[in-house]
Amino acid sequence: MDYLEALNKRYSVKKFDTEKIVSADALFHILEAARLSASSLGLQPYKIIIAQTPEMKEKLIPAFYNPSQISTCSHLIAIVSKNTIGPEYIGSYFNIISETREISLESLNPFRESISKHIERLSTEEVMTWADKQCYIVLGNLMFAAALENVDTCPMEGFKQERIDEILGLDPATEKVAVTLAIGYRSEEDEFQNFKKVRKPKEKLFKFI
Amino acid sequence: MDYLEALNKRYSVKKFDTEKIVSADALFHILEAARLSASSLGLQPYKIIIAQTPEMKEKLIPAFYNPSQISTCSHLIAIVSKNTIGPEYIGSYFNIISETREISLESLNPFRESISKHIERLSTEEVMTWADKQCYIVLGNLMFAAALENVDTCPMEGFKQERIDEILGLDPATEKVAVTLAIGYRSEEDEFQNFKKVRKPKEKLFKFI
Repeated sequence: MDYLEALNKRYSVKKFDTEKIVSADALFHILEAARLSASSLGLQPYKIIIAQTPEMKEKLIPAFYNPSQISTCSHLIAIVSKNTIGPEYIGSYFNIISETREISLESLNPFRESISKHIERLSTEEVMTWADKQCYIVLGNLMFAAALENVDTCPMEGFKQERIDEILGLDPATEKVAVTLAIGYRSEEDEFQNFKKVRKPKEKLFKFI
Repeated sequence: MDYLEALNKRYSVKKFDTEKIVSADALFHILEAARLSASSLGLQPYKIIIAQTPEMKEKLIPAFYNPSQISTCSHLIAIVSKNTIGPEYIGSYFNIISETREISLESLNPFRESISKHIERLSTEEVMTWADKQCYIVLGNLMFAAALENVDTCPMEGFKQERIDEILGLDPATEKVAVTLAIGYRSEEDEFQNFKKVRKPKEKLFKFI
C-alpha cells in the first residue's frame, strides 16, 4: 500500500474490535519504528510501556477520561518521558554509543561534554518540555508504521497524570507518561471511520518562500 | 523499500550535497504526509513554511547555531506553531469540517463547544506547549515520509528563536517556529553516514505488562 493511502486511511479510532489482536510480528515492526525514531542529541529521553494483558488494560481504564478505546484496544502503548537527564543517564547513553560503534569512551569525551553542557543549561521545566516533544516524534512514528501495517490507532492525551503514572508504577520524581496510543483494529460499529478526513487545505497550511 | 530499512538508513545529515535538489514530486508527497498528520482535537495548530530559494536559505543561516545543513540543504522546512487558539481559529477549523463533510455548522455546535471549553481551560503557556507537541508529530511524519522517498533529513532545534521568527516574518504574539527540518541528499563527504546507528536496545526501551 502506498504510504499516503495508508495515512489517508488512518483515523483516530473511537471503538476497536475486541475480537482482533495485533499480531506479534506487526507489533514488533511498529515498535521497531519507534525505536528508530530520531531524538534531540540522540538521547532518546523515553521508554515505552506496552499494556497487553486484559487485566492490565482493565486496570488502566480509570486513568482515562474517555476510556472506550482502552476497553476495546488490542494494546495500549504508553510513551514515558524522563523528567531529568543526569550524568548517569548521559553515561549510559555513551556506553551504548561506545559498544555500538566499537570506539573507546575516552574518544567520545568532547561529544559527551558538549551534550552535558547543553542539558545543564536547561531548567527542570525545559528538560521536561524537551523530553515530551521527543516523545511525540515516537508517537508519530508509531502511528505511521501502524498505518503501513494496516493496524488502527488512536493517540490519547486525555489521561489523569498521577493516576496513570501510579498504575504503571512510575517514579514521579524521574518520569511520567507523556502520551499514549491505543492500537488494534477498528470496530465495524465505529461510525467515525465513515467520516471524511478534515485537514487544512494546502494553500492554508503551506507557504513557499 | 521496506519501511524499517528506510528508517534504518535515515540519519541526521550534517552536510548535504549542494548539487542535488529534491524534486517537486517527492516534496509534494512528503508535505502531504505532514498535512495528513494526526493532531490533538484535530486542530492542526500549525503552518508549514518551506524555504526553497537560495536567497531565502542564505538569509536563514544566521538564525542557526550550526548552519552547515542550512547552507547545503535542498529545502528548509519550518514548522510554525500557534501561540494562541481563539474563537476565530476554532471557527475556521469548523468551517473546514462543515465544508469537507457537507454538514451544517449548526449540527457541529456541541462538538465545537466541547473543544472551545477544553482550550479555554488551558493557560497561554499550556496552549503553547500543547501546540509545540503537535508540531513534533508533523516533524515525525516529514522524516518518515522523506525516508520512504529516499530523501535525507536533519531535524534542527538549534535556532535563535527571535531571529528566525523575524526572518520568516512571523507575528511573535500569535506564532513562532517550533522546530525545523532540513531536507536534501547526503553529501558523500558527510562522514556521519558511515557511523552505526545508536539506539537503546529493545530490552532497555520496551516493557511489556
